[in-house]
Amino acid sequence: MYRTHTCGELTLADLGKDITLCGWVQKSRDLGGMTFIDMRDRYGVTQLAFNADDDEMLRARARELGREYVIQVKGTVIERSSKNLKIPTGEIEIRVADLLVLNAAKLPPFLIEDETDGGDDLRMKYRYLDLRRNPLRNNLMLRHRMAQAVRSYLDGQGFLEVETPVLIKSTPEGARDFVVPSRMNEGQFYALPQSPQTFKQLLMVSGFDRYFQIVKCFRDEDLRADRQPEFTQIDCEMAFVEQEDILNLFEGLIRYLFKTVKDIEIGQLPRMTYADAMRLYGSDKPDTRFGMHFVELNSVLKGAGFPVFDNAELVVGIKAEGCASYTRKQLDALTDFVKRPQIGATGLVYLRVNEDGTLKSSVDKFYNEAQLAAWAEAFDAKSGDLILVMAGDADKTRKQLNELRLEMGSQLGLRDKNKFSALWVIDFPLLEWDEESGRYHAMHHPFTSPKMEDVALLDTAPGEVRANAYDMVINGTEVGGGSIRIFQKDLQQLMFRHLGFSEEEAQAQFGFLMDAFTYGAPPHGGIAFGFDRLASIFAGLDSIRDVIAFPKNNAGRDVMIDSPSPISQEQLDELKISIR
Amino acid sequence: MYRTHTCGELTLADLGKDITLCGWVQKSRDLGGMTFIDMRDRYGVTQLAFNADDDEMLRARARELGREYVIQVKGTVIERSSKNLKIPTGEIEIRVADLLVLNAAKLPPFLIEDETDGGDDLRMKYRYLDLRRNPLRNNLMLRHRMAQAVRSYLDGQGFLEVETPVLIKSTPEGARDFVVPSRMNEGQFYALPQSPQTFKQLLMVSGFDRYFQIVKCFRDEDLRADRQPEFTQIDCEMAFVEQEDILNLFEGLIRYLFKTVKDIEIGQLPRMTYADAMRLYGSDKPDTRFGMHFVELNSVLKGAGFPVFDNAELVVGIKAEGCASYTRKQLDALTDFVKRPQIGATGLVYLRVNEDGTLKSSVDKFYNEAQLAAWAEAFDAKSGDLILVMAGDADKTRKQLNELRLEMGSQLGLRDKNKFSALWVIDFPLLEWDEESGRYHAMHHPFTSPKMEDVALLDTAPGEVRANAYDMVINGTEVGGGSIRIFQKDLQQLMFRHLGFSEEEAQAQFGFLMDAFTYGAPPHGGIAFGFDRLASIFAGLDSIRDVIAFPKNNAGRDVMIDSPSPISQEQLDELKISIR
Repeated sequence: MYRTHTCGELTLADLGKDITLCGWVQKSRDLGGMTFIDMRDRYGVTQLAFNADDDEMLRARARELGREYVIQVKGTVIERSSKNLKIPTGEIEIRVADLLVLNAAKLPPFLIEDETDGGDDLRMKYRYLDLRRNPLRNNLMLRHRMAQAVRSYLDGQGFLEVETPVLIKSTPEGARDFVVPSRMNEGQFYALPQSPQTFKQLLMVSGFDRYFQIVKCFRDEDLRADRQPEFTQIDCEMAFVEQEDILNLFEGLIRYLFKTVKDIEIGQLPRMTYADAMRLYGSDKPDTRFGMHFVELNSVLKGAGFPVFDNAELVVGIKAEGCASYTRKQLDALTDFVKRPQIGATGLVYLRVNEDGTLKSSVDKFYNEAQLAAWAEAFDAKSGDLILVMAGDADKTRKQLNELRLEMGSQLGLRDKNKFSALWVIDFPLLEWDEESGRYHAMHHPFTSPKMEDVALLDTAPGEVRANAYDMVINGTEVGGGSIRIFQKDLQQLMFRHLGFSEEEAQAQFGFLMDAFTYGAPPHGGIAFGFDRLASIFAGLDSIRDVIAFPKNNAGRDVMIDSPSPISQEQLDELKISIR
Repeated sequence: MYRTHTCGELTLADLGKDITLCGWVQKSRDLGGMTFIDMRDRYGVTQLAFNADDDEMLRARARELGREYVIQVKGTVIERSSKNLKIPTGEIEIRVADLLVLNAAKLPPFLIEDETDGGDDLRMKYRYLDLRRNPLRNNLMLRHRMAQAVRSYLDGQGFLEVETPVLIKSTPEGARDFVVPSRMNEGQFYALPQSPQTFKQLLMVSGFDRYFQIVKCFRDEDLRADRQPEFTQIDCEMAFVEQEDILNLFEGLIRYLFKTVKDIEIGQLPRMTYADAMRLYGSDKPDTRFGMHFVELNSVLKGAGFPVFDNAELVVGIKAEGCASYTRKQLDALTDFVKRPQIGATGLVYLRVNEDGTLKSSVDKFYNEAQLAAWAEAFDAKSGDLILVMAGDADKTRKQLNELRLEMGSQLGLRDKNKFSALWVIDFPLLEWDEESGRYHAMHHPFTSPKMEDVALLDTAPGEVRANAYDMVINGTEVGGGSIRIFQKDLQQLMFRHLGFSEEEAQAQFGFLMDAFTYGAPPHGGIAFGFDRLASIFAGLDSIRDVIAFPKNNAGRDVMIDSPSPISQEQLDELKISIR
């Protein structure tokens, strides 16, 4: 036993106790004949007092302690003269009788404080020091609590946690696999799972009825900002269920998580069709913390002789309340924002409803007073509002206006990280056209079932077929998605055919699953949540990196352990592979 | 909602209720004008009754249902005339009003019954059908309960569950790594972790204080019986602890598991030094469900002119109570057993204590009555006992006698799977000599700390240095092991030097860890349990395979999904590797 207590628990109730504490030197200061040291561990900070009158040698040794030294002290709990009521231990200090340095420490390369002076690269290299800082440790403690709460809820609902294999089989569908050469099966490879999809479906065929797992998944993709090659899913599947059952049960999960982890009641989740989400927000993951939904203006603004609108497939706008006072400069900045290559709009039109009720637009010469009034009317605009309008190809314009809406939401402070707005987006399209390959791809994955009433459209209008697929969206982020699966071999074969698989390809890659469907597969469906993302939203972070203990950088490298790295010729020889 | 209830819950309390059930056809039988079907799901079996007098068409359809068809029935709960009190639903049946076939099923390739007719290969190929059988599903439900209980205990003890990376760095120490070529870092590889050892130590340096994880680990080893290339550990680490703290806390875990999962009180775990374990059982994982410990006989049996004993380093034996009646044939079989190449003994000597008290040995001509009596006396042998003695090189003979002891335990029914005997083996040697490489290897791993009082021996008698290392053993199986770690850079460097690492090698492979030790590393230690093994012991199984949902065969193949498999030329090109 190195200690009798932690640094977070001693209070006035412990006055007079002889205790032993261990921890890190957070900081020290001298005050007359006294030296005070803040000693830190995971549980808190306790003040140590060394009095030269008591023991001058001991005090001298205390003065030599550097930041981040690991020490053990024995002493007595006494009342502090200068109390700090912000921390639980702030009314006491330890009158130290004995001090042992357990390990010295070099000066850390950056400050171990809530606000640090370390740059990203340095903090990644010394991640083990960055993790000492309260904000990071708190994120990971939050993640721990979330994981326990997820399991507790699902266990209570009769779900069984089953581990599925990590060394599986490479399939060309979907993202790029990480592969693992097999030494015992020369020239062959395992793949790391992008998700346990087929295994959880097989568990339903096995009659496991309700399955879950908090599980690592892998994708060898070029890392866009805030993607990690390995990430964690809360993966779930249920048998004998319809979409409604899944939405209800997992809405329950998310409500339970908010309640138990953050003590927030988020209430019932609204449901929005994919079509509505695209029409009203230009996004299948609308940020519903604020309104500002789209108003379509074709009937209001087309035909007045303004060629940009007249030639557009869609004229659509948003109303920014109280922004009529935006200056020319601010408006130009918004126009520049939408013209950035990442967004790619050609321009932005505004209509101001001035405080005196007059209307002023950037395209005044094409519209008379009555037309401008009808324009404002379409938004139910009031004095002081600003209307922003874009036009062009419908799909592209919606996406562009979505970006502008989010930007306006940010500028107006409507995207508060402490406010949470969750919803279901449902009725996703089954297929989406891929320009590059010139064929339809599965929007979710090839195991997603079409809505029965839409199956007939597969041959005539594949893009219009809706799927039994759903996403959970919180604050404009997709935190989870799933579907009711196909469970009949015939329908699965039909789907593979529509996705451009030959019969041989389908059999080679997913034959075991289609075979399984012939031995008594129950109807089933499921969902997977991105656990990193969910934790980052709960933590109020923009990035998933700081809810992961040891993340990789954007080049897929762990700069702390310097991985990946070359391997030995002997290893390559055993695997019978060569580097080109 | 496909169902109102499961197949495991309806009882007499539900009489008269209109219900909907779903499940699989377990079996059906005709009886006069009635057809009865046992319908199965994860929760149980419910009997369905189809009466020709009620609805002849419906009954005809019921008769056409094959085994494993997935069906939905609507009906009323009625009392059975012929009750089955062995199952919770055995007093009721469903008078079926409506039947829907959700999915037909081909005849399974083997019986879906507790005792199946399927061979191993067939059951592995159709694992999803094998998992329908109660024994397998029960194993995985037991594993689920164990996982939840482990987390509940450790969470309650202040441990934080932290996910460590799966894509890490290859190190030559230890077993062979699985490696993963990096597309973004040409010619470089990740490795899959054999354990999260260094990461959990870094978390201690980070001040996480108590860490755990139930985590997949990987070893690319030639698969001996009952090894899997991927396996699961309960991985734990604590800071500011001594060995005693860890033994107590994890003894608590195992007691909690036995109590909550199996309702068994296993009591306090005895502690045995490695030296005693080898001396008394010839094994560092003694099966202590039975006694029969070794008695060393050098002083009793050497020097009587029997050359085998006289020339042996060690003469040692066990007493098999009540086995004096073993026939010549049985004794010959035991001799053959120890002479098998896997054991490699040269012979076996016996001494019988006959029912009449007379003594009879296989080496009578070398020993007189008094000497035989002394021999029996050394074992405190009684009438009816059989003493079995082996001799030779001490280490080898102990290992051989261990095999014989276990065999005798099995023959005498002393290795009951429903009896559990757990203990700690402590004070392991730090190093063991490796004949092949001609150097010392770390017996646990290079981060294990030596006992301070033995450090001086590192230079003079490395093999005698004891480590702060411990194993938990249950029923002769090592279920967990760990150590107090080195936390000082100097000592870690010294260890690497003794293990034959050059300074450059040590720095290249573990530089980040030794660097971390210089920034304030606390004393720490931990343990890892083999979760598959632990679950198999709880389930009373000899093999870990049937506590794993989708295991691989002895060639490392998943025969169900046919993996590993070739990958495309495009994939190889992207990874810049070639198959030789």
